[in-house]
Amino acid sequence: MNKQQLIRQIRERRNFLCVGLDTDLKKMPACVLKGDNPIFTFNKAIIDATAPYCVAYKPNLAFYECFGLEGWKALEKTIKYLKMEYPDHFIIADAKRGDIGNTSAMYARGMFEEMDVDALTVAPYMGEDSVTPFLQYPDKWVVLLALTSNKGSHDFQLTEDSHGERLFEKVLRVSQQWADADRMMYVVGATQGRLFEDIRRIAPNNFLLVPGVGAQGGSLEEVCKYGMTSECGLLVNSSRGIIYASSEEDYAEVAAQKAQELQQQMDILLTAKGL
Amino acid sequence: MNKQQLIRQIRERRNFLCVGLDTDLKKMPACVLKGDNPIFTFNKAIIDATAPYCVAYKPNLAFYECFGLEGWKALEKTIKYLKMEYPDHFIIADAKRGDIGNTSAMYARGMFEEMDVDALTVAPYMGEDSVTPFLQYPDKWVVLLALTSNKGSHDFQLTEDSHGERLFEKVLRVSQQWADADRMMYVVGATQGRLFEDIRRIAPNNFLLVPGVGAQGGSLEEVCKYGMTSECGLLVNSSRGIIYASSEEDYAEVAAQKAQELQQQMDILLTAKGL
Repeated sequence: MNKQQLIRQIRERRNFLCVGLDTDLKKMPACVLKGDNPIFTFNKAIIDATAPYCVAYKPNLAFYECFGLEGWKALEKTIKYLKMEYPDHFIIADAKRGDIGNTSAMYARGMFEEMDVDALTVAPYMGEDSVTPFLQYPDKWVVLLALTSNKGSHDFQLTEDSHGERLFEKVLRVSQQWADADRMMYVVGATQGRLFEDIRRIAPNNFLLVPGVGAQGGSLEEVCKYGMTSECGLLVNSSRGIIYASSEEDYAEVAAQKAQELQQQMDILLTAKGL
Repeated sequence: MNKQQLIRQIRERRNFLCVGLDTDLKKMPACVLKGDNPIFTFNKAIIDATAPYCVAYKPNLAFYECFGLEGWKALEKTIKYLKMEYPDHFIIADAKRGDIGNTSAMYARGMFEEMDVDALTVAPYMGEDSVTPFLQYPDKWVVLLALTSNKGSHDFQLTEDSHGERLFEKVLRVSQQWADADRMMYVVGATQGRLFEDIRRIAPNNFLLVPGVGAQGGSLEEVCKYGMTSECGLLVNSSRGIIYASSEEDYAEVAAQKAQELQQQMDILLTAKGL
């Protein structure tokens, strides 16, 4: 999916919500665990319930990998289901990959050819040649980690260099040379508040994938105040706040309510921006 | 496997070689491709041929993930084969994972419980809480990226902060607080030569996993001169230089020769160090 198509989806569906499919058997309703293929059953129910209120889905690969082959089967089945039933929804594989060039090329092949997702999260630590192999696919996206939502983001990402530039700023600035804004997004945690202003100075046109609204305490209004562009430029992710809002049989229904609440807030924020 | 066991293997086997199982169908001998399960067939032949000359194996997960389910099956089968037939060899899953805490915990579960490998490579960009979930397993290891062997390592890893400390040095220094040297190793590329001196000032006792000897141009002698400790403290990896040394039917035999050449060089270097 290219940038114009993504922006059209956001305008038409009146939201910029990404639902995180961090599907954890330990948090799953008992009624789902009793059946076959609980991971896929849960994902399918969540997707069917929330699709009207979001524009993107983001399975985090850790939650599938940890079950070995069965987990990978459930992930592949989930992505096939999304592509078949909801082809206008954007799919982000949250994998935080990144390795030397020939190895990143193998990851890219797996994600963009075999899985055929739209975007992949990538870690920047190994630099340019670890990221560029992911940028060779038309209409596929790199979502590069810039400033994450967790406590540990302070350990290295905020380190100032001898010119006063923080590491996340250097990652943004340097990586702007690797691709333009129709191929590169950045992860910026909602918990970072006003730092969105600094980010927009360096990356004015890139989409930002924003985790940390909800369970991690970030504010949607603040993210939009400092981070929204004239093309929206935001995909705000919620995982636990939607998919585990109820652990009873009504889990899908409650997930839909939570997604709809966010969609309605987003509609107002888009309208206020003239979108 | 704990540190004393690893050191004993190195002393007894007279080498500190890790064979990288970056198994790429495009580089595989035609005779292997014709059969069933070419990835596992190739790995098994390479393992049987090289096991006398190495102490560790390092499958890089990208090369398996890129084939989806079939790739994961081949990876699981390879690891099971290693654990069954060569239980004294150390197994490193080269995956360069790292995510927020609850997600890293899922990766850790997948790698250390399901796969049951000895060690996992982890990317440091997201800081402490992205790494510590991997440190909760007795006798399992984190191999944290510090200074990698690729060109892109210069983009961010060498950035000096306002105190003159380079990012890789900060990663080493800060992460020394997260675990001691019997749980934490570091990736340091062989192409970085004399920087091993700087690394040993900060991390005098940790094992270093050293890629980049061979195809990438690093020197084994230089790595040992500046990086070897009284406990050896090195695992030097070679992938392409061993496993693709021949693309003919004699590939396993030639891989054994290449591994043996390195083993003999390592024996001399260990002896020179009194090990």
